[in-house]
Amino acid sequence: MTTATKLFGPVQADMAGVEERLQGVRRTDQPLLAPMLETALAGSGKRLRPAIALLSGHFYRYDLPRLVTLAAALELLHVATLVHDDVIDNAPTRRGRPTVNARFKNTVAVMLGDYLFANAAVLISQTEHVRVIENFSRSLMLIATGELGQDLSTYDTNQDIRAYLQRISGKTAALFLTAGECGALLSGAPEEHVTALRDYGYNLGMAFQIVDDILDVTGTEAAMGKPVGSDLLEGILTLPSLMLMERQPRNNPIARLFRARGARRAAFLTEALAAIRESSIVEDSYAMAEAFADRARAALAPLPADPAKATLHDLCGYVLSRSS
Amino acid sequence: MTTATKLFGPVQADMAGVEERLQGVRRTDQPLLAPMLETALAGSGKRLRPAIALLSGHFYRYDLPRLVTLAAALELLHVATLVHDDVIDNAPTRRGRPTVNARFKNTVAVMLGDYLFANAAVLISQTEHVRVIENFSRSLMLIATGELGQDLSTYDTNQDIRAYLQRISGKTAALFLTAGECGALLSGAPEEHVTALRDYGYNLGMAFQIVDDILDVTGTEAAMGKPVGSDLLEGILTLPSLMLMERQPRNNPIARLFRARGARRAAFLTEALAAIRESSIVEDSYAMAEAFADRARAALAPLPADPAKATLHDLCGYVLSRSS
Repeated sequence: MTTATKLFGPVQADMAGVEERLQGVRRTDQPLLAPMLETALAGSGKRLRPAIALLSGHFYRYDLPRLVTLAAALELLHVATLVHDDVIDNAPTRRGRPTVNARFKNTVAVMLGDYLFANAAVLISQTEHVRVIENFSRSLMLIATGELGQDLSTYDTNQDIRAYLQRISGKTAALFLTAGECGALLSGAPEEHVTALRDYGYNLGMAFQIVDDILDVTGTEAAMGKPVGSDLLEGILTLPSLMLMERQPRNNPIARLFRARGARRAAFLTEALAAIRESSIVEDSYAMAEAFADRARAALAPLPADPAKATLHDLCGYVLSRSS
Repeated sequence: MTTATKLFGPVQADMAGVEERLQGVRRTDQPLLAPMLETALAGSGKRLRPAIALLSGHFYRYDLPRLVTLAAALELLHVATLVHDDVIDNAPTRRGRPTVNARFKNTVAVMLGDYLFANAAVLISQTEHVRVIENFSRSLMLIATGELGQDLSTYDTNQDIRAYLQRISGKTAALFLTAGECGALLSGAPEEHVTALRDYGYNLGMAFQIVDDILDVTGTEAAMGKPVGSDLLEGILTLPSLMLMERQPRNNPIARLFRARGARRAAFLTEALAAIRESSIVEDSYAMAEAFADRARAALAPLPADPAKATLHDLCGYVLSRSS
């Protein structure tokens, strides 16, 4: 049994249906569009959001066709935001593969992202569940607001951890929350359990993003498929770098990096990453991620017995322990 | 009575509700976002799509709150696509005002467009009408596909008028069609009249875009708020330029413009515009727009007597006669 098989437990086999639905989006009669879709959708990750949707829909009426539609819509919305993010961050690679903006150009990536948004919108409307559609639309709004907030705050050293948590709750946790909530809604779960899976998704998403931000400063380029410290190079302050700003208010390498131009930036980046790694910041950041994961696990308590419960529980550990 | 008052007849006063709803989107607690929204939403045109939605909803139960929600969603989707279009076309001005990409930067325009899409999605979900939401999502898909098709065909001189009509049916007519169809659906119109207003919207949208493309070669920069011949400069072939390609297959100034670099481009553009104006191409293009407008008027025939009927009829003449 592979890690992946263990990872998604009772819905593992059904994840193939999500892949099929995503393959459907890749089929197009426009020959020039095919390689663009291929670039955006290939190897785009672990399909965590779709899995959370199926698992959250496993406690009551497991309506697989509609859950697969929801799951594919979530993944397409996620990929669409990544395609636009990579334009905004001018990112050359993601997961070790060239981004759409790098392989084609920025304008293609803008249009392709819109095309993927459109596909996500069509899929979610096919669930024909008004509250699911409303929640989905609201999560797009939170993601867009989170992205704008992140961009408007780049190179701004007057941010605090509170603002960071607010940003990632929109940028990342909103879609995990929607996966849990909408999966529960499509299965006809009672309101109390919709709320439980909504809380689960939110807290898991927060833990996920914090770990992501830790890996950006501790990982290796080989494992991450992007340069280490890429956020700092883009002027984006995440939890570890905000902790360094707080703990070393004077002569901080990040503040110097943000003011520097040219080759001196690399030296300040190295210095900032070393300062983070040599302190207790990584440990303290993981403690914060663990606190969110604990809340995610606790949120599961009211749910009825179901194999999905243990799997959702174990996903918290997976999110904390992942190395890429 | 102003032209505008006459233009939207029985729904003219209710258009203020659409403006109010759009004002609501402009109110934000993010101080940096406010001027961006202002740039995107101010002076963005005649609100034709919202008016068609209200008028199409006037024949049966005139459910104004839901129609206003639909109308605002249509306009926001339209503005969102304009914001992204201006990034893709690298446009400095629209309607004589600086674009979001020009006033801020491309990445801001990408995010702002996504934010407006998100607002449109939230509004349309608030209609709580599954078929309306489905149609709206499908129109986003057609717009995105039309835009991609346009971009993938720039500088391609092997296009024909059939491909052009296909492109503008997605890029423009889809949203007019959705305005008519969804307005009718929200008013509880019988299927036959939903189809009639859908056909009306489609054909009016086709006429509208053809006139737009004529004005791009016959208008003045002062009236249009953008350089004359801007499409040709971006490598986009529209009806008048495709007619010139067909009628002058050898030594065509457009083919030379597309191959030229630098200052020679301006000379070939002037030559191409003169060739179009001196031929019967403008007249023949208007004849095609008129044929679509005639079909739009004919589509109204089965609808019951209502003041909205005459207004929709007159909008066809307005679209043909507008000069900016």
